[in-house]
Amino acid sequence: MKRSEVLAAQLRAARSLGRAGIVLTAAEAGEIEVADLGLNHLEVEGLELVTYVNSSRYCAKELVLFPRQTFPEHRHPPFEDNPGKDETFRCRQGLVWLYVEGTAAKAIQAQVPTKSAPYYTVFHEIELRPGEQYTIPRNTLHWFQGGPEGAVVSEFSSASRDEFDIFTDPRIRRTAQIGD
Amino acid sequence: MKRSEVLAAQLRAARSLGRAGIVLTAAEAGEIEVADLGLNHLEVEGLELVTYVNSSRYCAKELVLFPRQTFPEHRHPPFEDNPGKDETFRCRQGLVWLYVEGTAAKAIQAQVPTKSAPYYTVFHEIELRPGEQYTIPRNTLHWFQGGPEGAVVSEFSSASRDEFDIFTDPRIRRTAQIGD
Repeated sequence: MKRSEVLAAQLRAARSLGRAGIVLTAAEAGEIEVADLGLNHLEVEGLELVTYVNSSRYCAKELVLFPRQTFPEHRHPPFEDNPGKDETFRCRQGLVWLYVEGTAAKAIQAQVPTKSAPYYTVFHEIELRPGEQYTIPRNTLHWFQGGPEGAVVSEFSSASRDEFDIFTDPRIRRTAQIGD
Repeated sequence: MKRSEVLAAQLRAARSLGRAGIVLTAAEAGEIEVADLGLNHLEVEGLELVTYVNSSRYCAKELVLFPRQTFPEHRHPPFEDNPGKDETFRCRQGLVWLYVEGTAAKAIQAQVPTKSAPYYTVFHEIELRPGEQYTIPRNTLHWFQGGPEGAVVSEFSSASRDEFDIFTDPRIRRTAQIGD
């Protein structure tokens, strides 16, 4: 991503957080992570996030999804002496559809990104509105999409090591994409 | 506490959370924990809290402090095979003063509750305003007080087992005080 694109996404995410009543320090706002996953279509697949704390024991983040922006299917495998990341998503503003392993919905509400469609394989649908939450167990496939007006989601979890995430789409590189 | 007092505190806490932009489900609002610690002066010493998730690995809560309400000095000791709770406090609205072990401030901004003064012994002051946070390591003494307009604080932590907390004040009983 170009530096200007990263900055634009950071500003947009900061506004979304502000509308949700979430206050960031100036330093945090300047360090909002813009994850385009190496796919170069951030508006379709990607995520904006702020990590408040990530120790060897627990982690807390805010996630921002632009309207219909999708974070692709992945799982959090065991690493080192950790059994893998469990994570609780709590919707703060907007609407998020979460898809996990289990009985597939007959028709899902999210729009699967057409260029990446083969890499979406789990379709058990959970809809989260503000105040609603769901916990995804370690090492299970999941993906999620913001609703028509996007979403702000708090993530509470065990230790997060994004670099170990396993994505269904083999093209994905999960690294911070800050202005490279 | 009388049931009516608990209800009044729950309603007041729900309003504080609403002003901070935090949405609760109706079920969550009805289950806000009102902790008077058996001291029977909730306005002076106590806390209102919502626990979103508390697994064997991680925990997330919202804490509400009424103006000048104080949560008394305590620490989170090791239990079972857990080394003790680490916790990150992030101020969302208002102002909170946090006191931990370390060099004492010459004059602290909080008002020590006079009837419980002997049980406050650590005075290293950290002031947290919205967007600011601080992590308290396991098994270290700490206490905190809401500012003149109270505070809403998010707490991210390792597993929480309140019943094992060790308070400096021997009169304290740390149990949920819902309408007993």
